[in-house]
Amino acid sequence: MAEVPFLVVLAGGVSSRMWPVREKSLLRFGPDPLLVSQLRRMQKLGFTDVIIVANPENQATITDVVSGISGLNIRVVVQDEARGMGDALLRTQPFVPASRSLYVTQVHDIVDDDLHRDMLHTWRNNPSITYIAGARREDYFPGGYLVVDANDRITGLIEKPGADRRPSDLVNIVAHIHAEAGRLFEAIHAEYARSETPDDHYERAMSALMGSHVFRVVPYHGVWKALKYPWHVLDVMDHYLSHIQGQTIAPGVFIADTARITGNVVIEEGVKIFPGAAVVGPAYIGAGTIVGNNALVRGSMVLDRCEVGFTTEIARSYVADHVGMHACRVLDSVFMPNVNFSAGCTTANLRIDKGVVSSTIKGERVRTERDKLGAIIGQGAFLSVDVMTMPGVKIGAGAQVGPGTHVHQDIRDGQRVYVKQVYHIVEPGE
Amino acid sequence: MAEVPFLVVLAGGVSSRMWPVREKSLLRFGPDPLLVSQLRRMQKLGFTDVIIVANPENQATITDVVSGISGLNIRVVVQDEARGMGDALLRTQPFVPASRSLYVTQVHDIVDDDLHRDMLHTWRNNPSITYIAGARREDYFPGGYLVVDANDRITGLIEKPGADRRPSDLVNIVAHIHAEAGRLFEAIHAEYARSETPDDHYERAMSALMGSHVFRVVPYHGVWKALKYPWHVLDVMDHYLSHIQGQTIAPGVFIADTARITGNVVIEEGVKIFPGAAVVGPAYIGAGTIVGNNALVRGSMVLDRCEVGFTTEIARSYVADHVGMHACRVLDSVFMPNVNFSAGCTTANLRIDKGVVSSTIKGERVRTERDKLGAIIGQGAFLSVDVMTMPGVKIGAGAQVGPGTHVHQDIRDGQRVYVKQVYHIVEPGE
Amino acid sequence: MAEVPFLVVLAGGVSSRMWPVREKSLLRFGPDPLLVSQLRRMQKLGFTDVIIVANPENQATITDVVSGISGLNIRVVVQDEARGMGDALLRTQPFVPASRSLYVTQVHDIVDDDLHRDMLHTWRNNPSITYIAGARREDYFPGGYLVVDANDRITGLIEKPGADRRPSDLVNIVAHIHAEAGRLFEAIHAEYARSETPDDHYERAMSALMGSHVFRVVPYHGVWKALKYPWHVLDVMDHYLSHIQGQTIAPGVFIADTARITGNVVIEEGVKIFPGAAVVGPAYIGAGTIVGNNALVRGSMVLDRCEVGFTTEIARSYVADHVGMHACRVLDSVFMPNVNFSAGCTTANLRIDKGVVSSTIKGERVRTERDKLGAIIGQGAFLSVDVMTMPGVKIGAGAQVGPGTHVHQDIRDGQRVYVKQVYHIVEPGE
Repeated sequence: MAEVPFLVVLAGGVSSRMWPVREKSLLRFGPDPLLVSQLRRMQKLGFTDVIIVANPENQATITDVVSGISGLNIRVVVQDEARGMGDALLRTQPFVPASRSLYVTQVHDIVDDDLHRDMLHTWRNNPSITYIAGARREDYFPGGYLVVDANDRITGLIEKPGADRRPSDLVNIVAHIHAEAGRLFEAIHAEYARSETPDDHYERAMSALMGSHVFRVVPYHGVWKALKYPWHVLDVMDHYLSHIQGQTIAPGVFIADTARITGNVVIEEGVKIFPGAAVVGPAYIGAGTIVGNNALVRGSMVLDRCEVGFTTEIARSYVADHVGMHACRVLDSVFMPNVNFSAGCTTANLRIDKGVVSSTIKGERVRTERDKLGAIIGQGAFLSVDVMTMPGVKIGAGAQVGPGTHVHQDIRDGQRVYVKQVYHIVEPGE
Repeated sequence: MAEVPFLVVLAGGVSSRMWPVREKSLLRFGPDPLLVSQLRRMQKLGFTDVIIVANPENQATITDVVSGISGLNIRVVVQDEARGMGDALLRTQPFVPASRSLYVTQVHDIVDDDLHRDMLHTWRNNPSITYIAGARREDYFPGGYLVVDANDRITGLIEKPGADRRPSDLVNIVAHIHAEAGRLFEAIHAEYARSETPDDHYERAMSALMGSHVFRVVPYHGVWKALKYPWHVLDVMDHYLSHIQGQTIAPGVFIADTARITGNVVIEEGVKIFPGAAVVGPAYIGAGTIVGNNALVRGSMVLDRCEVGFTTEIARSYVADHVGMHACRVLDSVFMPNVNFSAGCTTANLRIDKGVVSSTIKGERVRTERDKLGAIIGQGAFLSVDVMTMPGVKIGAGAQVGPGTHVHQDIRDGQRVYVKQVYHIVEPGE
Repeated sequence: MAEVPFLVVLAGGVSSRMWPVREKSLLRFGPDPLLVSQLRRMQKLGFTDVIIVANPENQATITDVVSGISGLNIRVVVQDEARGMGDALLRTQPFVPASRSLYVTQVHDIVDDDLHRDMLHTWRNNPSITYIAGARREDYFPGGYLVVDANDRITGLIEKPGADRRPSDLVNIVAHIHAEAGRLFEAIHAEYARSETPDDHYERAMSALMGSHVFRVVPYHGVWKALKYPWHVLDVMDHYLSHIQGQTIAPGVFIADTARITGNVVIEEGVKIFPGAAVVGPAYIGAGTIVGNNALVRGSMVLDRCEVGFTTEIARSYVADHVGMHACRVLDSVFMPNVNFSAGCTTANLRIDKGVVSSTIKGERVRTERDKLGAIIGQGAFLSVDVMTMPGVKIGAGAQVGPGTHVHQDIRDGQRVYVKQVYHIVEPGE
């Protein structure tokens, strides 16, 4: 018997709710993509055999990025169609011994190592039963609640019961150890045979198994951040920033004598920080990025080869690779790669009434639960001088926004938006 | 007989011309409200008995703020209705011995101590007559001119005679020593009995007394600043700033090593001045205020608990408590408490024709006599990103101004003003 | 026989294509007007006798500025009407001995000294023939191409032949040594006698002479910059900046301890550079200019008595005397004297499609061949707060541009342009 379960990492889900952020498993919160840093953590916890479930779009990139990890036996399988988590797990069946225990996780759930350690520890004590991590939540969370009896045995799973009908304070985190993989695959097959929709076959399979086998909860009190909406990138970023300790500055980094680096920071190689600039930790500055004269980066991640131009301010924001910014304010915002944010631009981050910021997801207003939120800007968007984005707006990949535009509504991928000004012209002598 | 007259400080006048600045007697030009600093000065000059005439709105606050002054015998009386200065003085009658001399002043007249010293000195030489301070003015001033005979005896008082009809170069400052309070009260009563309007009973009473009693002028050449229009706050501020000598920095103040403090400044406790910021005197920075990275404050007062955000410039401006400013330009402006001035905002301070700035007072254009003047912004107003205020405009308390608005006209208390942009949208592929 | 030819400097051409830049011969690229620095260079090369051809407008100023040059025998003649280069040369006829060689140059052609040295050297070897400098150009240049035979003898001159019909890779630079002045004057007279138009009499005269006299090319590989369009000011500026070596800082210049001066710079007397500011070479800062707190000047010339206000950025730009700038971005731009560029203004320098910037010259779109180009702003123009100029626009002398204007098209001399905003106003309580 293996000392650890076989690890499944689900990385194939396509989340249109994350628009204009794409491929959340490949987002980088430091030098490595999220998937890689998750795998390295699991490796340290003792896992050896891993199957990643990808989708047709990200398969090649995922295969590429995990190829750099040594010491893990990694296989990438593809879920061709978005048929749900149950189907995703079935893609792994050919490669997992039926008798082996299976640890199911999702790449975009960010939790402390303690959760996994507790799961493994509990499982080692009794590897013959199934374990589900249950996050203790005082406030209501729109997820799956565990029904638990007096002996900590899970007897059911209720999706979004409503705040008043919670069967417990334990919310299902996708960190599940199934005692026998074969038994799980059979139960999932049975659910797909019963009906194709809705796509909660995995949850239904678990509910069915609960009648005949023991499921037990492993309670968890720590951090749990999930990438469901694009502003959650900021939450995950904060998590990673909070783990930076001290100052790690690569050799050869140029820091002008009047620049100031304070707090916990990682500054990668090739970075240049010009006179009068400041980096206030926690912060991560990616390789080759330039922090121009009198610029300020604080509480942010600015990835590789970015230009943080003169007097630019980046506060509490996530800025991906190769973004150009100049004399602008990037506040509580998420910028995908190759965005151009011109001089004078600001991501307004505070409502006039100082209320919670909402954002439009698939046509509906969603409360972000954030008092401060700027903009989410997709890959390659070009914002001309003096554009003002209103709190919570999203701008699609490749969009172009003309000078002086106030962006009050989302702009779709590839749209071009210009303001028409009306002029009053007086000729000389009039 | 007392060594000094009984001091009356008029602090009850309601001045709609000061809108959106309120309660001018309570404005702070340093740690103390104007009224308190005026009283402390009078205390140093020897006054012992003081009556302050308040109005129903400011009575409680005035009573509160003067309670901290020890060594003065202070009474606060209330003028219930705005019936003029004469009526205000009659409110003091129950508390002033009829035979005592009475020194009448206004809280919002800022003069050098020399004026009061000369008045007291002259009065001590002959306490049996009445004295009026007369400011020598070469340029015409729209106030009350003194008619003076060859023996320096005042024989009349002419309100706003016009530049060509000035009877002298002496303008009446409300710094009057009446030889006997009882005689003055009687004369005022007589004027109210004669007619209720206009409300210049005090001046009429004095004119009447001039027929039977000696009034003499005490000429004055020094500073005289009065709070009549809201931009006068800047003049009074300049007066107080000009009295700062050297650098007084409270213990525990944080000043980054690359911040620079030059000139005469007072920096109160709890202030933080971040890297690259500069404070250029004369300047006053109130308790708990934060001067952010690369910000600049010069020739200004910024009171308590303000946020002077990244790259904000405050020049020659008065900023009251708890104002939030961020990446903006506050130039030659007056901000009341709790204003929010967002990123990219500017108070334009110079007319395109570089002429004298005018402002609208009660529907009429008034020349401010200033070449540079920004905006006057009332308590709690919220200006969104990139708002441009034109020279001399005023914005009411609680007003909300949407992003990118050019404010060409005054905005009333509580109004919300937004700009409607017209967009030209091109879909991808078009 | 003199050791050097008689030097003619053509400085009278009126170029409407340079609008709103005026009097290109008087532009300063350092302490001296272009004409003066050209003359000083020629003086070092040995020239002694100079005739400058001016026009009625610039005659007085030219006479004035060259009066400060000692050691050269300078005469200023005036071409009353714009009748072409041939006529300009005829203005010099009364003052040049007919037998003397004549070196014809234009003030606005900027070349390396090597060109003149090679010309003189070749001429000294054989002073009896005529020499034309020919710039070797791989790319097509819309100028005059030399037709050259196997013996380097010039047999013709073809204006703008088109890229596919170039007779050689040698382009005519106006650096011509005519063996005998008299012979040239005669030939020009003949052409004017033949017809008044078109105005290429000088070129026609040379073509005619080529039939009977030897013209030889002196090839040239070095820098050649000409002031044809106003953005060429930036090219000439770059040329002059590239010749600055090390740091030349006048005595008495104030440089704050936290200001940083890097690279090759000239900083003239009376300059003040305030805390947190940076000057990044190559750069020239003219006398009396103030570089305010946290401002940045790089790759630019800022001439005399300018105010580079707080957080202003000037990059790769030419800024003439007495320009006021405040919290703004001056990028790849040319500003004539006395421009006012207010807070928040930006000269956008990059097209959204990142293509080559075009500009309108006499009603036609001209490719500037620059990826980055800001604005060209004429003398005394006033740009209010938050004006955004689009790449390649030009603004006339004395123009006024209202707050928040996006300048998409050229603004003529003296025009006043304002944006009309449409407001949505909500009253309190609504």
